[in-house]
Amino acid sequence: MCQLLGMNSNVPTDICFSFQGFSQRGGITDTHRDGWGIGFFEGSGARVFIDSKATVESALAEFIKTYPIHSLNIIAHIRRATQGAIALANCHPFVRELWGQYWVFAHNGDLKDFYPRLDSQYRPVGGTDSERAFCYLLEHLREQFSAAPLDSARLYPVLAEVTREIAAHGRFNFLLSNGEILFAHCSDYLNYVIRRPPFSTAHLVDKDITVDFSNLAGDNDLVAVIATQPLTDNEAWTAFRPGELLAFKMGEVLSL
Amino acid sequence: MCQLLGMNSNVPTDICFSFQGFSQRGGITDTHRDGWGIGFFEGSGARVFIDSKATVESALAEFIKTYPIHSLNIIAHIRRATQGAIALANCHPFVRELWGQYWVFAHNGDLKDFYPRLDSQYRPVGGTDSERAFCYLLEHLREQFSAAPLDSARLYPVLAEVTREIAAHGRFNFLLSNGEILFAHCSDYLNYVIRRPPFSTAHLVDKDITVDFSNLAGDNDLVAVIATQPLTDNEAWTAFRPGELLAFKMGEVLSL
Repeated sequence: MCQLLGMNSNVPTDICFSFQGFSQRGGITDTHRDGWGIGFFEGSGARVFIDSKATVESALAEFIKTYPIHSLNIIAHIRRATQGAIALANCHPFVRELWGQYWVFAHNGDLKDFYPRLDSQYRPVGGTDSERAFCYLLEHLREQFSAAPLDSARLYPVLAEVTREIAAHGRFNFLLSNGEILFAHCSDYLNYVIRRPPFSTAHLVDKDITVDFSNLAGDNDLVAVIATQPLTDNEAWTAFRPGELLAFKMGEVLSL
Repeated sequence: MCQLLGMNSNVPTDICFSFQGFSQRGGITDTHRDGWGIGFFEGSGARVFIDSKATVESALAEFIKTYPIHSLNIIAHIRRATQGAIALANCHPFVRELWGQYWVFAHNGDLKDFYPRLDSQYRPVGGTDSERAFCYLLEHLREQFSAAPLDSARLYPVLAEVTREIAAHGRFNFLLSNGEILFAHCSDYLNYVIRRPPFSTAHLVDKDITVDFSNLAGDNDLVAVIATQPLTDNEAWTAFRPGELLAFKMGEVLSL
């Protein structure tokens, strides 16, 4: 199984602490060695770092751990190949442009017999079920909206519909963001925690590191962290229900 | 003026030497401080590193200088903002997917009154003339070919046509690649050198560094390096003619 990590916040926040623990799952605390990636939004811009090496052997992962990129929306992924070779083209997150916005997507799961017709707007470059699902999903959003809705939350019902359709093919845990909103869908494993005042300490599961957010965070900060498995062992993580699609914006779960 | 750097070769080659010199132009030997970026193809995959900082102040540029990514096609850019704010969304190279291939593009120049209608396939995310030109150009290729031609060289006449149209608006030096072929167009400043056996030493213009390629390159290697201004002072660089569009493949200029 791959590993997902997402962050959505109301102030630009770096992910160095969470990524310290998360990246251990790429070869040390877990066996996902088939590549990794992380995407950051900065304003309307996005930058995605991907590598077909295991995180624990990746000089780039080492760089990212100590390079604080401040972002409202971050999506990271560690890959264990189920469909598609070990190659850069198959590393998540994937990026496409829709309505003049970058969309970033990462998937954990395995979709059986999922070969939709993809010959118009978006075509996969690599060989994964994940990239096919991403292309199909964007195609569907584009068919329903000719331009970006003013409030991305309006996309929720349309996204929920196409997600159900794809999830009928198998495990479809995913994170998806356009830099404003972060959608998270759970088929079987996905958890989140929202860090809010009063801030306290957090201790990683995968590495013996503790951070005291009360020294780092501002009085109004809200930071949602989403991960396949909880990253810390002293915070109150909430498990998604199977089939649940949540929309995170400004560090909170939207009521939709 | 921005600075362009491209590499096209017949064996995966790293660009550390050239980038050492090139990156000096982002704040030391030249005054382009408004961001930079570099894109590498690896198989059908592509990864692009961008930063809105000056290269000489960028920890990411420092990392790239010493991290040898081996690639057949590389495009780098140092920005001096003419249109569009200093922001990540305006950093080159830009990437889009066309026909299931990633396309990477960087531009040096300034296009006046260039606001084409872009409401179908590709829409710009940032505010530069460059990204508008890239979207327009891909739109045009897509209209002429419903799928990738088996030989990318077949794109040449179509690309030449749309390039002439865009270049009527101003300076339009660009590098464009799909990982197989690298197109380079010159409005005013663009130069290239092809390194081939017998290999010799090269000495950077921007930094006092010499490398001896005879120790590094194989007997059949061909490496084309394209840059706004020559990067070395002891090699035979060829200046593009104004209006010239060249296609590089496997380290050589195609006769088209």
